[in-house]
Amino acid sequence: MSLPFATRLQNVETSAIRELFKLLGKPGIISFAGGFPDSAMFDVAGIQEAANRALTEEPGGALQYGATEGYGPLREQLSAFMAAKGVTVAPDGLIVTTGSQQGLDLLGKTMIDPGDKVIVEGPTFLATIQCFRLYGADIVSAPIDAQGVQVDRLEQLMVEHKPKFVYLIPTFGNPSGALLSLERRKRVLELAVKYQTLVVEDDPYGDLYFDPASPPPRSVLSLSKDFPGSRDYIAHCGSLSKVLSPGLRVGWLIAPPALLATATMCKQFSDAHTSTFAQATAAQYLKAGRMPGTLDKVRQVYGERARVMGECLQRELRDAVEFTQPQGGLFFWARLTGAGGKIKDAGEFAKRAIGQGVAFVPGSPFYASYPDMSTFRLSFATADVEKIAEGVGRLAKALHAA
Amino acid sequence: MSLPFATRLQNVETSAIRELFKLLGKPGIISFAGGFPDSAMFDVAGIQEAANRALTEEPGGALQYGATEGYGPLREQLSAFMAAKGVTVAPDGLIVTTGSQQGLDLLGKTMIDPGDKVIVEGPTFLATIQCFRLYGADIVSAPIDAQGVQVDRLEQLMVEHKPKFVYLIPTFGNPSGALLSLERRKRVLELAVKYQTLVVEDDPYGDLYFDPASPPPRSVLSLSKDFPGSRDYIAHCGSLSKVLSPGLRVGWLIAPPALLATATMCKQFSDAHTSTFAQATAAQYLKAGRMPGTLDKVRQVYGERARVMGECLQRELRDAVEFTQPQGGLFFWARLTGAGGKIKDAGEFAKRAIGQGVAFVPGSPFYASYPDMSTFRLSFATADVEKIAEGVGRLAKALHAA
Repeated sequence: MSLPFATRLQNVETSAIRELFKLLGKPGIISFAGGFPDSAMFDVAGIQEAANRALTEEPGGALQYGATEGYGPLREQLSAFMAAKGVTVAPDGLIVTTGSQQGLDLLGKTMIDPGDKVIVEGPTFLATIQCFRLYGADIVSAPIDAQGVQVDRLEQLMVEHKPKFVYLIPTFGNPSGALLSLERRKRVLELAVKYQTLVVEDDPYGDLYFDPASPPPRSVLSLSKDFPGSRDYIAHCGSLSKVLSPGLRVGWLIAPPALLATATMCKQFSDAHTSTFAQATAAQYLKAGRMPGTLDKVRQVYGERARVMGECLQRELRDAVEFTQPQGGLFFWARLTGAGGKIKDAGEFAKRAIGQGVAFVPGSPFYASYPDMSTFRLSFATADVEKIAEGVGRLAKALHAA
Repeated sequence: MSLPFATRLQNVETSAIRELFKLLGKPGIISFAGGFPDSAMFDVAGIQEAANRALTEEPGGALQYGATEGYGPLREQLSAFMAAKGVTVAPDGLIVTTGSQQGLDLLGKTMIDPGDKVIVEGPTFLATIQCFRLYGADIVSAPIDAQGVQVDRLEQLMVEHKPKFVYLIPTFGNPSGALLSLERRKRVLELAVKYQTLVVEDDPYGDLYFDPASPPPRSVLSLSKDFPGSRDYIAHCGSLSKVLSPGLRVGWLIAPPALLATATMCKQFSDAHTSTFAQATAAQYLKAGRMPGTLDKVRQVYGERARVMGECLQRELRDAVEFTQPQGGLFFWARLTGAGGKIKDAGEFAKRAIGQGVAFVPGSPFYASYPDMSTFRLSFATADVEKIAEGVGRLAKALHAA
């Protein structure tokens, strides 16, 4: 027998990354492949205290059905969390989502008709591409450089394709690690108003900057207050996954009222609401004031790892690769230059690297179209500095063995 | 400005029930309107112990990203939980969903093309109708009686409409409280095989039977082992929401391998995975062996409330209403007979009842088409027996005042 699946499934392929991840189980592999934070960074004691407080102080709220929009005390805490980042949003101006992945899914469900164009960065988060394609989107890639999306090219593509919306990860993008400059952020806001087009700002990494003295530019959402009318065209996805814990599955979506109301209705029929148990725990955690300390810690640890990885890459791989040193986030994005007659195909490099006991993800799956086959992504988040040095040494062996 | 929403949104309406729920905040209202369990039944101590154990014994697993298919130890526990109910399913034969609502959403995403027919019971769970309509389904209602869906009529409708699938709540349905008889369950399995059509069994209430000496017939999924080939056409949605806690948002989907794999891919782009924090807590709870005691307690309490509500309805409303005494679940489903010249419109009755300080949900929104306007749903789950007696007294006043 074969069941008749929906046509939308023809729009997505099995992830090439999945195949690679199957190889990660090999003993002794040092992995730069993940897209997740280090479990050792989790503030387990703080979360445990928050969970116990939630179950003691508000067992009904934490265990019963809740409003689709989100648990009231968490919406208040998230409103305050965003205020500290320069964003004025009332508690009812955001909804809680089951991770920011669900924020993307709800935007797809709410906005995309089959055949609609959506502009994303090339490269961008793989699960975004697939998520929007499942709603029938025709994905168009706007090129990026170290300062993020190239705004002149973005404008041309907006004129040419009249997209339903534009999706960007402006701050320490995945996989690029790129940081959209302040000038370009302003241009993006101007474009949103000029073309009356929704811009989705996905911001899971914005708090993970390494130098406390030099934070990244304010979020596009935060800057929108300086551009009259622009807030009507900005949706913003936030998440506790990279800074506190992915397992809670607590994200949030900020959007213009009509879009937020429609996304809420879609969420009602997607999962009714995000776990109130996780929401009440997150609310207690934020209320307890532990987040600033947690952020200090992860910034310091990831910053050190990024510094070491950058030094090792320069020392060991020299002109065979080029990359921009990331100022935050979880990723290095690099290109094989082919210098000295070395290989330029990152897929081949990844296979050889596995042979040397080190894993990473080649860049091509992150492109919705026209992949740059010489690119690859290295995560520095989950290996300590000794492992990073050892792993980069293995990368060099894999390259020189070519 | 107005953003261009997707066409699929034109397929759903704002819920009539939502409007009614706004009135529930009035002080002193006794509510029979909810579709949820009593918060006072939650085993808070057991859940707290489970959460602490999860965070102490497996903090990485409970707080990190996890497999889209679900957290391994929970899948094992759910496999054992189903085995105790006569269903043989390996841990990898089920996936964990964010409540069974997400199971429905994934079935919609996986199976439904715009214009596809889906057969449901008339009446059925409101959020199912809306969920499938968001994927463009054309919903066809099969009539029910106290023994559940009328299988001859169901067969006619399957022949006529060639549905993508048939959706049933065979055991203590919402809103009907009806119990599909053993004979009809067998007929459903025969029809699934005969017409090679997927049957979705939604089973959130199956464990909530009141008489331990007389459990309901085995689930359609369980019975499928006696009908060669039928299991290839059965999907089954389970949930901890009604028996343990809705706030955990832990449900599961059992389906043929190809469907399960495709639903998993859809889930990956919907919310990545269900909260591992909630999953690890649920796994520890089940492992601790507390579920049988919890089930004993809720069966006893809800059974008592259902008995009292039935007695009060007969004594106070007499021949003005007709209903079948439920043997499990959370609901009475009743019809205004119009006897003695009393009103027959349940919407009007609901408004008058609010005036008397008692709330319930009229039946019409639960019909995808051809609503029976004289029907209404009473939940006996959240009011204690004194409140039930008082509330039914108020219903009588509302009726007699008519």
